[in-house]
Amino acid sequence: MTAAISLKPRLFVEAPLGPGQALELPPASAHYLGQVLRSPLGASLALFNGRDGEWAAVIVAQARRTCRVETRELLRPQAPEPGPSLLFAPLKRTRQELLVEKAVELGVQALQPVRLRRGVVERVNPERMRAIAIEAAEQCGRLTLPALADLRALADCLPAPAGPVLYVGDETGGGQALLAAFAAHGPGDLLVGPEGGFDPAELELLRRSPKVVPVDLGPRILRAETAAIAALAAWQLTFAAAG
Amino acid sequence: MTAAISLKPRLFVEAPLGPGQALELPPASAHYLGQVLRSPLGASLALFNGRDGEWAAVIVAQARRTCRVETRELLRPQAPEPGPSLLFAPLKRTRQELLVEKAVELGVQALQPVRLRRGVVERVNPERMRAIAIEAAEQCGRLTLPALADLRALADCLPAPAGPVLYVGDETGGGQALLAAFAAHGPGDLLVGPEGGFDPAELELLRRSPKVVPVDLGPRILRAETAAIAALAAWQLTFAAAG
Repeated sequence: MTAAISLKPRLFVEAPLGPGQALELPPASAHYLGQVLRSPLGASLALFNGRDGEWAAVIVAQARRTCRVETRELLRPQAPEPGPSLLFAPLKRTRQELLVEKAVELGVQALQPVRLRRGVVERVNPERMRAIAIEAAEQCGRLTLPALADLRALADCLPAPAGPVLYVGDETGGGQALLAAFAAHGPGDLLVGPEGGFDPAELELLRRSPKVVPVDLGPRILRAETAAIAALAAWQLTFAAAG
Repeated sequence: MTAAISLKPRLFVEAPLGPGQALELPPASAHYLGQVLRSPLGASLALFNGRDGEWAAVIVAQARRTCRVETRELLRPQAPEPGPSLLFAPLKRTRQELLVEKAVELGVQALQPVRLRRGVVERVNPERMRAIAIEAAEQCGRLTLPALADLRALADCLPAPAGPVLYVGDETGGGQALLAAFAAHGPGDLLVGPEGGFDPAELELLRRSPKVVPVDLGPRILRAETAAIAALAAWQLTFAAAG
């Protein structure tokens, strides 16, 4: 948490951003500024698009459904935001939305839903996930959105032999303590299974992969989204901490 | 996460627990077993009360609104469940409930709401907090409920000179990285401020306390409940990890 990012509102846009650039905000953002916040002509805001850094901008024209803004100075140049990919079994709506919001706040780089046998939900809603990710990114000061991948089979999500390790929350109790595993293997991606745990065939598939590191997330039975949030928090505090 | 705790349903009761003991479940639990789960006569369940360990029990009599159970064997003796106190500014309803649920899952020992100037909510609902804490404790396999304290002034929550330190999420950016602070100062309690941050007078009060350790929770602006969850997850993984 830092007080460095203070210009609000802070909005994500798709358009390129650069000095003295005019752009029409998308309708939802125009509505939010004009009808919800009632920002007047000349009001300041911050814009980011995931590529060109964060820019101060001002409202130069507005009508009921439209809002035209013009960029002023660069507030923060684009910079890498290190974070892991989070692989997870899709959850029911409220807990899924919670997972996306918190994962974005906690610096997730990519969200990869995985089809697992004991998962309770068969699909994800990409538009809804994206809307939540944008809102969380706007709120928490990120310069990027996480990548939102389509649902895939576990076999298609195994770590590449030459890539980073995949830390897998192992509810059977055989894993290494998470922080010790982080210290031993460095930054990697995270996989959290469904609440019923992995199926034996899935465990077997995971254990055959030399890049999979089973980890223990503590003595209690964590809900799937809690396990994911805890692992992401630990990742950030270990690998991306300030100071 | 461990698979060791597998007897379900798992219910919290107030009554003392011991061998061969009959007890009448409270109406809400009787309703849950009989009407929601439709558990038949003779069905097994697990009971805990925060004092006497976890016991297997069976349903020995049931009617529409009542359920009588009898304990069988001890499943797990009562054992310490180390965790910090979490001090927090009360939040709006949904985020407050989320905070309580996740804090219980992540092993909080006591929940202490604190009156802070930039807090958005002036009160807590102790009955609702308790109901959520019970449900989370039942689900995650805890043997205890956290203590739920009444709302207090910050001045009444400062750490005792001879007690553990109080880690304070410092959004002004001056804090030590959380895991480094944990390594330096050992297990302590946690204080997370409201989203608007601490008031200057509050910061001054905190900084005058020799037992306060300001900590940095990372580069993004975390929502208050996210900051609390992240700090609790890190605490458990640092001080109570298996392996």
